Amino acid sequence: MLIVPEREIADLMTREAAFEAVEKVFAAMAAGDAYNFPVVREAIGHEDALYGFKGGFDQAGLTLGLKAGGYWPHNLEKRAIINHQSTVFLFDPDTGKAKAMVGGNLLTALRTAAASSVSIKHLARPGASVIGMIGAGHQAAFQLRSALEQRNFDKVIGWNFHPEMLPNIEKVAAEAGLPFEAVQLDGMTDADVIISITSAFSPSLMAEHVSPGTHIACMGTDTKGKQEVEAALLAKAAVFTDEVAQSISIGEAQHAIAAGLITEADVAQLGAVINGTHAGRSSDDQITLFDGTGVGLQDLAVAASVVDLAVAKGIAIEVDF
Amino acid sequence: MLIVPEREIADLMTREAAFEAVEKVFAAMAAGDAYNFPVVREAIGHEDALYGFKGGFDQAGLTLGLKAGGYWPHNLEKRAIINHQSTVFLFDPDTGKAKAMVGGNLLTALRTAAASSVSIKHLARPGASVIGMIGAGHQAAFQLRSALEQRNFDKVIGWNFHPEMLPNIEKVAAEAGLPFEAVQLDGMTDADVIISITSAFSPSLMAEHVSPGTHIACMGTDTKGKQEVEAALLAKAAVFTDEVAQSISIGEAQHAIAAGLITEADVAQLGAVINGTHAGRSSDDQITLFDGTGVGLQDLAVAASVVDLAVAKGIAIEVDF
Repeated sequence: MLIVPEREIADLMTREAAFEAVEKVFAAMAAGDAYNFPVVREAIGHEDALYGFKGGFDQAGLTLGLKAGGYWPHNLEKRAIINHQSTVFLFDPDTGKAKAMVGGNLLTALRTAAASSVSIKHLARPGASVIGMIGAGHQAAFQLRSALEQRNFDKVIGWNFHPEMLPNIEKVAAEAGLPFEAVQLDGMTDADVIISITSAFSPSLMAEHVSPGTHIACMGTDTKGKQEVEAALLAKAAVFTDEVAQSISIGEAQHAIAAGLITEADVAQLGAVINGTHAGRSSDDQITLFDGTGVGLQDLAVAASVVDLAVAKGIAIEVDF
Repeated sequence: MLIVPEREIADLMTREAAFEAVEKVFAAMAAGDAYNFPVVREAIGHEDALYGFKGGFDQAGLTLGLKAGGYWPHNLEKRAIINHQSTVFLFDPDTGKAKAMVGGNLLTALRTAAASSVSIKHLARPGASVIGMIGAGHQAAFQLRSALEQRNFDKVIGWNFHPEMLPNIEKVAAEAGLPFEAVQLDGMTDADVIISITSAFSPSLMAEHVSPGTHIACMGTDTKGKQEVEAALLAKAAVFTDEVAQSISIGEAQHAIAAGLITEADVAQLGAVINGTHAGRSSDDQITLFDGTGVGLQDLAVAASVVDLAVAKGIAIEVDF
């Protein structure tokens, strides 16, 4: 039994490793080699916490297990620890024995950033030069840092409901040596790639804010009722997702589906594009949209990857369990 | 983060501690202080394994977490390890951080034995003297050993589909200094308490095999289609269970419900009897039946108990996670 504590993840895990793990497992999902289990998500009636399990099995990578944890909204104020708390448990698919326990907090940020980056690699125009950010919170910095590695961007633009948070992403742009400009939502027409990463319950980005040929990654909607972009935008776009069942029920596509603007058949798996069984973007004018809902298999994939790195560097804690 | 490996459980955990933990959590469930999460159970398509998660939260005992694992049918023949493999993970309900990891194999056997024993304590006639066993596999020995502590039994009788396995329970009777007699099913009319612990898909114990005043604990049915006793027996009995929702869908009561012989309102929580909000047995002639389906909260309760014992004895492994 191997243990990789949260405090070791930052030095071990790279954006490249997270990208590779997520790209591979999206491909396995689309090929039918990997699947996610039903998600358990419970308001436990204590500390206003949401707690649950996201499990899955990747027969291609032989990765079995779950992420357990959730959201404890008073952690930061009461205890100075972060509100999202999760742990990944990996099992040996040959025997059912517990195999590894891995801190899941930073990994969750990295796998979410990797997902939008995988979508940019496979769906954005090769010549994309301006990237736009909707949202400027903690997770937005992860998304942007990873996205900047996918194309030769020469400018970052950003909008946030609370403009005073924009320095969070301006800093990431500066690290990459890129200029940053705060814009209004209609300024997003300048962007070739847009990442939306908010927890909103009504749309910010409207169809009129998006130019032909843009790739949009919607990364914030993972619950019934949440919404980041206008439903009409999905009707104009070629829509891709990590998992179709989640996309149409709790993802960004839920609203366009409910409004009858698109059907389930209009939502394709990003993994199919990776595998070459879906052509992906069909023209330079097409708008592509990735609905990133977040699946347990992403967590398992990055956790398995970090366990390998920890073993290679000799810092995995071994317990005779 | 505390770790209690499987190999330590046998020396740490007592039948008394398991009994106390299960009795307390059944009471908490009936009082509305503890609840089980939806069960995840997946045939993963590898090694013919069934894998899943049983989680729950006990607000009274502040126990949060899950049992993960399942059934790997080829473990024993291929690898000389047991087919049921499980691990319990406890979380701090105040913060969402992982708190303990505990080997779940022996604990599962002990908590299942504790459940039928709790039902005997609260539902069997005080003067019960003959206990009958239907089933003589590995788990039957656990059930009998624990049950013998609940009443002054003076005889054990047993039936098994494969009679050559009966020495498994005869041995437990001998350990307790009690005579054992192999009987046919109609010989069960001599029993005051009957425990059924098989994996059958058709009934062995029929209504005519049960005398007035008997308490029956049906411990084997935890899946749609399984059945240990004739549905008509439930119509004749006062029916109790660990969790009503499981009892009527995957427990022994599923068949009597489906046949319209009883309704959901006829199935009571054993915890209500423990709490004194249900009178329990109403007469010496009444047949009582406990439908033990097995819930995640039982696993969490015994795991929390064994962690306390391991800490007290200084043998919990502490990992800085």
